[in-house]
Amino acid sequence: MFAVEVSDHIMIAHSFRGEVFGPAQKLHGATFAVSAAFLADKLDDNGIVVDIGRAFEVLKAVLAPLNYRNLDDLPEFRGVNTTTEFLTLHVFNGLAAAVRAGKMGRDGREIAAIRVTIGESPTARAWYEAPLW
Amino acid sequence: MFAVEVSDHIMIAHSFRGEVFGPAQKLHGATFAVSAAFLADKLDDNGIVVDIGRAFEVLKAVLAPLNYRNLDDLPEFRGVNTTTEFLTLHVFNGLAAAVRAGKMGRDGREIAAIRVTIGESPTARAWYEAPLW
Amino acid sequence: MFAVEVSDHIMIAHSFRGEVFGPAQKLHGATFAVSAAFLADKLDDNGIVVDIGRAFEVLKAVLAPLNYRNLDDLPEFRGVNTTTEFLTLHVFNGLAAAVRAGKMGRDGREIAAIRVTIGESPTARAWYEAPLW
Amino acid sequence: MFAVEVSDHIMIAHSFRGEVFGPAQKLHGATFAVSAAFLADKLDDNGIVVDIGRAFEVLKAVLAPLNYRNLDDLPEFRGVNTTTEFLTLHVFNGLAAAVRAGKMGRDGREIAAIRVTIGESPTARAWYEAPLW
Amino acid sequence: MFAVEVSDHIMIAHSFRGEVFGPAQKLHGATFAVSAAFLADKLDDNGIVVDIGRAFEVLKAVLAPLNYRNLDDLPEFRGVNTTTEFLTLHVFNGLAAAVRAGKMGRDGREIAAIRVTIGESPTARAWYEAPLW
Amino acid sequence: MFAVEVSDHIMIAHSFRGEVFGPAQKLHGATFAVSAAFLADKLDDNGIVVDIGRAFEVLKAVLAPLNYRNLDDLPEFRGVNTTTEFLTLHVFNGLAAAVRAGKMGRDGREIAAIRVTIGESPTARAWYEAPLW
Repeated sequence: MFAVEVSDHIMIAHSFRGEVFGPAQKLHGATFAVSAAFLADKLDDNGIVVDIGRAFEVLKAVLAPLNYRNLDDLPEFRGVNTTTEFLTLHVFNGLAAAVRAGKMGRDGREIAAIRVTIGESPTARAWYEAPLW
Repeated sequence: MFAVEVSDHIMIAHSFRGEVFGPAQKLHGATFAVSAAFLADKLDDNGIVVDIGRAFEVLKAVLAPLNYRNLDDLPEFRGVNTTTEFLTLHVFNGLAAAVRAGKMGRDGREIAAIRVTIGESPTARAWYEAPLW
Repeated sequence: MFAVEVSDHIMIAHSFRGEVFGPAQKLHGATFAVSAAFLADKLDDNGIVVDIGRAFEVLKAVLAPLNYRNLDDLPEFRGVNTTTEFLTLHVFNGLAAAVRAGKMGRDGREIAAIRVTIGESPTARAWYEAPLW
Repeated sequence: MFAVEVSDHIMIAHSFRGEVFGPAQKLHGATFAVSAAFLADKLDDNGIVVDIGRAFEVLKAVLAPLNYRNLDDLPEFRGVNTTTEFLTLHVFNGLAAAVRAGKMGRDGREIAAIRVTIGESPTARAWYEAPLW
Repeated sequence: MFAVEVSDHIMIAHSFRGEVFGPAQKLHGATFAVSAAFLADKLDDNGIVVDIGRAFEVLKAVLAPLNYRNLDDLPEFRGVNTTTEFLTLHVFNGLAAAVRAGKMGRDGREIAAIRVTIGESPTARAWYEAPLW
Repeated sequence: MFAVEVSDHIMIAHSFRGEVFGPAQKLHGATFAVSAAFLADKLDDNGIVVDIGRAFEVLKAVLAPLNYRNLDDLPEFRGVNTTTEFLTLHVFNGLAAAVRAGKMGRDGREIAAIRVTIGESPTARAWYEAPLW
């Protein structure tokens, strides 16, 4: 299996509900270093998994509505904890929709899976990986 | 599959037996950068894989008996080479016991697997990953 | 000149006033990776610049009031932009006070200077360095 | 599954054919940070996956013909785009041949798979992983 | 002294003349990770050293003519070895001109110095630092 | 001022004497990531600070007697604590001798200073910088 991974980052505020979160129940924030990996069984005729330029653009487009925002204010996140894990799935869903819509410069059916990794600090990160079809 | 990974480090001395180890047969040492990833199919009601605070504590507790020690002196490691690979399994076993004992703030059955990664230098690392059930 | 540097991190929310900040005028947040370097002309009798254990503790104590907070809510930061640059000076002042009060396990006069570096993202950081005497 | 991974790097020039590559159609270059991971179900009697010294040597031997070269000039790469993805497979093939020839200090049959990761910049990398048998 | 540093990268081809360069006399290439630090004695009224958005733009503008190019082909580099050291000075000159022309969102006289750091591989980098006035 | 910096690493065991060291009084160890920076006012006729190949060799030669050793056993370190700070000076002295002996491929008088940085863990490092003449 081949993979190509591109990285970007966002800076957000948010708070969590639930005693398990301790001091993170208060409004705080994070720099999220976000990596998006696209997996495929075969390279295309150009010798690539996906057009890396488009991969950067698609990732940036998925992240843009979150960047420099308080995630507690976004209607789409009402009633959920925007944990790092939760956001890996959120970004995955945005990327998966782009792949399925053929926005990666290749027949989406040829992309087997996506893995999204989000680093929240030098000592903690989360990832989500799933097949697309 | 979701994963959450936390990191810590230890500073230890040890030596190896076997010609394959060359100069590492002499007493030397290492800073081991240790990452513990917990994998789960679903997030819990709080939107997390495990309580990250407990993950840090459990990892620290597993590493504490090794930190600032000469591993050659520890009875539990008598007769084995405490290679980086060997230690990934040792740490895995400690974390797995904690998960099975319900110490991660979630029914241990909901944690599918653990991956332990240990970096020994800027150019070498090892990992061990296995399902828990 | 010798230096010893220890690192920690905090996760905060804040917003900025001033058109120069563009989208960062909205409430957002950051993971700040904070490094504190203590500089000295000579090592002490133990062969160290400062007690590294105390250095970690002092840095943590200076950062604690900021961690998991919305900096806009802290009275001490009223009317100022808590930029990364500004915070390097804030942390410097806290560390300098500790050194002058003799909390680093060595006569404060023997510590010549402090440098505080704060990374806000994979592509941006700031630092502040100044002599102590 | 256990893994041991060693890393090295090369500095090469190359160009790509195909509109998808945009400005990278011109002759340019890259520092490729190359990591080779060897995976095995069990450790050997020494407590290792492979002899790490040999792993470094084998990786260096596979990379040597590429290092400080214009890949467009190499006969073996005639007519192909030497993308980062393509090179992960090229390095994999070289490492797999070494494992199968028993050059890793262990019966090659005991090495289950290899993963090659190549970082091309701070924000992009690729990998290839496949079983050996 | 305060500093703010922003980072970007370029991918270039080049070759060197002189026996000291050994295999690097052949056409090869590099990913250069370039960091530009702006130093000032005081923060401005917004609490910043420079407008970080402009800093990213100015750095990108200085690097653009080099990115995805064979530096041997650029007239401005005729007859010189475009070593990492040489390029730190080249980038410094471009940034210094921008500061002096007032393009950083602040009176250029308030920027005391610039430091340019270029990483060429995981094990080698160069930097150049000089006062501006 | 120009600088070129090369990096290598060693894996050692040692122990410290003095209550200030707490658990590090016991025999333990470290992976030391060692960077050596050579500073010069001007580039030479080849456009370099020093021959980077020689810089790697000289650094390796200085580190070799320490690598894979218990520093407590080395006669040259009898009665001293081989702290990270102490070792920055030790490496500096070895490099300085090489520069003064003209081993860097350039008149040693043209190298103004050396900075040695040693990382002992992901959260702690030390450095020593001094002029050579």
